[in-house]
Formats: sequence, C-alpha cells, structure tokens
Amino acid sequence: MISVEEALARVLSYVSVLEPETKPILDSLGQVLAEDVYAQFSIPPLDNSAMDGYAVNAEDTKGASDSTPIRLRVIDEVAAGYMSKKSVTPGTAIRIMTGAPIPAGADAVVQFEHTSEASRMGYGQKARLSEVEVYRPVTPGQNIRQAGEDVRQGEMILKKGSTIRPAEIGVLASLGHSVVRVIRRPKVAILATGDELVQVGEHLPIGKIYNSNTYSVASQVLRYGAIPVILGIARDREEDLISKIRQALECDMLITTAGVSVGDYDLTKKVLATEGEINFWQVRMKPGKPLAFGRIGKLPHLGLPGNPVSSMVSFEQFGRPAILKMMGKTEFRKPEVTAVLHGGADNRDGRRCYYRAVVRKINGTWHADLTGPQGSGILTSMALANGLVIVPEDVAELKDGETVRVQMLDWTEDMENA
Amino acid sequence: MISVEEALARVLSYVSVLEPETKPILDSLGQVLAEDVYAQFSIPPLDNSAMDGYAVNAEDTKGASDSTPIRLRVIDEVAAGYMSKKSVTPGTAIRIMTGAPIPAGADAVVQFEHTSEASRMGYGQKARLSEVEVYRPVTPGQNIRQAGEDVRQGEMILKKGSTIRPAEIGVLASLGHSVVRVIRRPKVAILATGDELVQVGEHLPIGKIYNSNTYSVASQVLRYGAIPVILGIARDREEDLISKIRQALECDMLITTAGVSVGDYDLTKKVLATEGEINFWQVRMKPGKPLAFGRIGKLPHLGLPGNPVSSMVSFEQFGRPAILKMMGKTEFRKPEVTAVLHGGADNRDGRRCYYRAVVRKINGTWHADLTGPQGSGILTSMALANGLVIVPEDVAELKDGETVRVQMLDWTEDMENA
Repeated sequence: MISVEEALARVLSYVSVLEPETKPILDSLGQVLAEDVYAQFSIPPLDNSAMDGYAVNAEDTKGASDSTPIRLRVIDEVAAGYMSKKSVTPGTAIRIMTGAPIPAGADAVVQFEHTSEASRMGYGQKARLSEVEVYRPVTPGQNIRQAGEDVRQGEMILKKGSTIRPAEIGVLASLGHSVVRVIRRPKVAILATGDELVQVGEHLPIGKIYNSNTYSVASQVLRYGAIPVILGIARDREEDLISKIRQALECDMLITTAGVSVGDYDLTKKVLATEGEINFWQVRMKPGKPLAFGRIGKLPHLGLPGNPVSSMVSFEQFGRPAILKMMGKTEFRKPEVTAVLHGGADNRDGRRCYYRAVVRKINGTWHADLTGPQGSGILTSMALANGLVIVPEDVAELKDGETVRVQMLDWTEDMENA
Repeated sequence: MISVEEALARVLSYVSVLEPETKPILDSLGQVLAEDVYAQFSIPPLDNSAMDGYAVNAEDTKGASDSTPIRLRVIDEVAAGYMSKKSVTPGTAIRIMTGAPIPAGADAVVQFEHTSEASRMGYGQKARLSEVEVYRPVTPGQNIRQAGEDVRQGEMILKKGSTIRPAEIGVLASLGHSVVRVIRRPKVAILATGDELVQVGEHLPIGKIYNSNTYSVASQVLRYGAIPVILGIARDREEDLISKIRQALECDMLITTAGVSVGDYDLTKKVLATEGEINFWQVRMKPGKPLAFGRIGKLPHLGLPGNPVSSMVSFEQFGRPAILKMMGKTEFRKPEVTAVLHGGADNRDGRRCYYRAVVRKINGTWHADLTGPQGSGILTSMALANGLVIVPEDVAELKDGETVRVQMLDWTEDMENA
C-alpha cells in the first residue's frame, strides 16, 4: 500500500498546466491569469473632481467663513465626461461635477455644501448662479483626484498566476480590456462502469442500482472549475468500454468510477492496460483504498472506486488537486480545521480514515460530530456532512472529546459565521 | 445618516424568496432545495456483497484456517446487477462480486483473499472453480451490505432549504431523480449611468473613462449565484435612462451605478422618482455613503455609488444579501475574522470605514496589512485586497498592532491554509 501523499504526488506528476485562452473578461471569473497586465494609460487619466462643487484657485478662498464669505464669478460649468474650454482666473470659479476634469487654472474644489448653492438651493437642484459665495477655505489639491492616483501608465497592474475575481474584472475593464488571457478550464470526461447501473429517470429492475457516481463526480468537477463531459455508463463488455474511452480522447482527463478493485468482472482494468499505461494502487486510506492512475495516449486517467462515498472522498484527495493544477492554481490542499470530536472513531487496519462529520463553530471553537455509520456505501452520510475527521494511520482509536483535524468538504462563506 | 444595519434591513424588506423551478440535477449545484425529498425505495434495495468473494452459510466456515481449510462446492457465480437463480445449501458456495445481491440461503461472504482463489490464481484473474477452499471463518452478516443501510424507503432524505452540493446531487441520482425542484436564480439587471463612460474595447476620448462598474458588479452578481443581465450605459438624457430601465422590468432586481450623490447631473434620481418609489440614503459608511433603494413597479432597485470601490463595497453590504435572500438562503453575513492590524487607520467623520487589506494567517493568527491609499476611486486596491478592515463608527483611530475585525472579501478554500 502507498500513502495518500505518495499517491497524490504520482497523480500530480501526470498532469500539467493547460494552455492559455482568450476570453471576454466576465467569462473569466475564477480562472488564472496567463500573463502580466500592464497599464497602457493612467487612471484617472486627468486630475478630476472628487466632489460636486466649484473649481477654484485655493488662494482665492483664504479666510472664507460663514460670516466672511468670498464671492466668486461663475464662468462655466462642467460635467463628468466633458472638458471646460475656459480657465479659472483670480476671482472666478467653474461649477464642476464629481469626476469632471479640473479646468485649467483651478487647483482645488469647494464642495457644494460649503457654498451658497447648498444654503439657497438645496441639494441636487439645478442651479445656474452667475456668482457663488464660498464659506470655507480650501488648500491646493483639496477635493481633487490626481491623474494616476489609481494606476500609473506602464505599471504592472495584475500579475500572471492571479485568480480572476470581481475586483480583477473591474480593473481590467477600467483599463479598457474587453478580453483577457487565462489558463483554460480542463474538460474532464466521466465514465461509469458496470452492468448493475441504470441511468437516472429510467425504470429500476430488481438487482440493479441507479448510477449516482457520474453525477456526484461531475458536480465535484464543476465545483472546482472544470467542465464535466459525461460519457454515460460502459457495460461490462470490452468493445463498449473501448468505444466509450475513445470518446474521452478530446478531453484533458478521464475519470472512471468502479472497476478498480480485485473482482474479476473488473474489465476496466484489463481494457485500460491494453489501451494505455495504468497503475493499480492500494492507497492507505479508508474509504477509498483501490485507486487506478495512468494514461491513455496522452490523456491522464483517474480510476475511482465504485462505492459512492469512496468515489467522492477519493475525488477530493486526487481528482481535485489534478484539476486545480491543470487550471494553473498552486494551492492544492483542502482546508483543515482543528476541532473537538463528539463520538468515537476506530481505525483497525492502519489506514488513514476520513470519517464524515458535521463541523460547527461554537463560541470560537470548532466541534465535529460524526454522522453515524461510516460504511462506504452510505452516500447520505456525505449529504449530512460538511467535513471529514481524519484518523491518522498510526492512531487506532479517537475518543470522544479528543482534538482532531478535520478536512472541510464545504468551505463556504457561511463557515466562519456558522 | 442611517446605519449600515438599518440600510440592510430596509433592503431585505423589499426582496422576497423567488419561486421554485424544476432543473436537471447537475444544473442545480449551489441552488436551494424547494421541497423535502423522500426515498421511494430503499438503498441498497437488496442485501448485497461488500466484497468480491464467495457467498456462504457462515455455519459452514466454522473452524476454517490455513491448516484446516473448509471445502465448498461452487454452484454458481453472480455479478453486480444480476441475480443468482440458485440457493446456497450446506456445503455449497456461490462466487459473488461486489454489489451483487446475496443469493438465497447465504448469510455471509468470504472474501477472495481468504480462499484458495487468491493463493492459486492471483487477484483479478478469471477463475471458474468447481470447488473452493475457505481459510477463515465468517460470522452471519459479515461482508454483507444490508438492504436499506443507506436509505430506508419512505425516509426524508433531503430537507427543503438545503443548498445543493455534490453529495446532494449524488443522493438525488441514487434515488433515480433526473430533475429537482429548487428556488430559481435571480436575474439582476445592471445599468451604468453617465456621459463620461465609454464601453470597454472602444477608443477612449480625452476626459472620458471606461465603464468598469458594470463588470465588477456583474461578476459579483455571478459569484453569489445570480444571473447578470447587462443593460449597458445610460446617457444623461431622460429618454435614454427610461428606455434602459424598462428593459429591466423582466428581471428580479435592477442595480444602477452612479447617479445617487448630490450632483445636479444625477438625472437617475429624478427619473427613478418618476418611474417608481425611490429612497436616497446617506449611509454611515465609507466608502459608499450615498445609496438609493426603492421599487420600479414591483422591481426592487438598488442604486450604488459611481466610485468603483464604493460600488463594490456597497454591493457586498447590500446587493449580496438581497441576492442570497431571493435565492432562498438564510445566512447573509459576510465572514469575519479577528486580526492584528499592520499600519494605522483613521476615521475622522464617525462613519463605519471599510479599509482594504491583505489578510494572512501566520502561525494560527490572522494579520491584516492595509493596501495603502484608501481613496474610493482606487480600484486596484480591491484587486490587492482580500479583506476589509472595519473601523467602527465610534472609533476615531486604529493603531498599528491593534486587534481589528476584518470582513473577508474572498472566503475560498485557500484561506485556512494561506
């Protein structure tokens, strides 16, 4: 048997970062930037007003107060997106809206609230004064956003390898980019195997079960940002399996479920060995001991066990990091928290156990309640759980009240407040 | 001015949980279940084998060991998905694969590893023995998965209000559901306003700026699970604004950016007051003081400030909870952590400040480094940041080394390991 770490290292050695693609910025959310982005111009491009008010010479406002207002002649007005053709000269002012470029000759803005406009007209009403009274002095630069305050022309703005979030999309748009180069999302083919499987929505004959692994794995694939390509169910006949596997060759990875344990109906193993290079591993973990990994041509292939829980838990340990690596991400670990265990957990055969638990934060401390029976066929336990209590290989028993590490299945915004 | 909490309470009072829709299970990831799901049959439906091995009478294997093997006659073999028509009688065994239904008369399974099959044939090779030697005794029930072990017929399996995750999708599939009833995702119309705005990808005339708010807000909308409907840029002309706003009427919410401050070019305010009910609030926060909220017909309308950072920060406080409520979620708080502040933060005018910071966990303690200048036009500071340091309304200054609360902008799986 090999350790979880060794199996993961082997899996990761088989997959590479995919090539970049050019995408509309809004479609790139969550992908990894494939090149450094430099600013081709400054933002803001010109000094502009941070307030609605009057562009003035600061010098002119010296000593202004409610009792000794300074009167200025209003010679123009300018809105955001427009340039005044006039210059502010001593004794004059230009009415200016937030975001409008500062007119020549002005070096500060007096906000409406500190002028006669506010007191006479009320906020937001249209006013065309030929004269304005200023009640507060301003200093040079006051209420002005300087050109290049956000971004200086030529500056590196976004770094290759960053994940695209809403703020990155905003920054790209502010620089006028409609598209961006990002590492493309992997296409992951998913193939269930076994004569016992029936497609959801169809009649279930006695002795058969519905194919659930395809759906749980496909949604795990989706969740981590890859594109699932569902190949359906391969029956236990060589030609069916081979034809299905060939449909996967245009994808970036093939995930099969079932067919990797010791049973002699596990045709998958035979076909995969013929079609490519395949390794069958016994991984020192529970659930999920049997695992296959190899290549079909250049296509990496991950063979997950058939038990529903084993399949999901193995995907988290091996499929998820492979997908993240292909997407250009560099952090592959699942988040873990330290928690107080409620209920006991056995570990009889020296494997690393992942026991389903409900993890909660109570008064700043994490608590993990086991979800009950831990059989690898008990898929409902995954739906109850939000974390996996880890029983290390060399620990035979965890007792109620002990401190344990828990791998978090869901690491959502709700977690910290839970 | 009103508090952030009061503004949020008012916003939430205007939006309701949306109606359910029926979706293919894989397309429902992240949505909220709109009804309880009950099991229409048990899983597994029949007792079945947990191992590849031999179905036997446990009684027959008493005393079996390497030196005193028990010989049984092999009368049939059965694979997963098939039923044996024979019964196990004393002295006989049926070769059985994992998942295959337990034949009549058998009450336990001896795994291959504990029989002559393993020693003679090696794992996984096709073997048709007429006789098998058993080297270990089994007890009744051993290596059998009981019918109903995962799910009992009639049981409630998934609860209304749960968020659909990969495990829920797996459970739905295992019960044969190809579709599921979930609360539908809101459609959120996004309208930028202002003559100064230029569409990304187009030439930028002097004095103009690119429209970035539409993209940052649309990606925030996407990120929290809603569907952005981009209406483009409304110019500062009444008829343009009205026609754009009417395009929003098929959506579940309208978000406008800019046009909510005191400037008299803020036509948005006038038009919105004519077309519907609109409230202009001064919210005691920074960035993001001006905020509009109301209704156009039945359509909730959120008016965000025009500054790029104000727009994003206000969206997180008000737009995100509104979307989550419409989606049927019940936890609206952003996650917060307690961190050590690096750098100082002023708060001169008694508002709640949200200062951009890089938050890291070092040796189990969170640290928050301010990203530098905190101007509300400085969008790059949002791209640098992963959290917002909160300066409470009644705190005039935070000093280097103080303990602060930080609202996390990104709460991803990388956080805990960062």
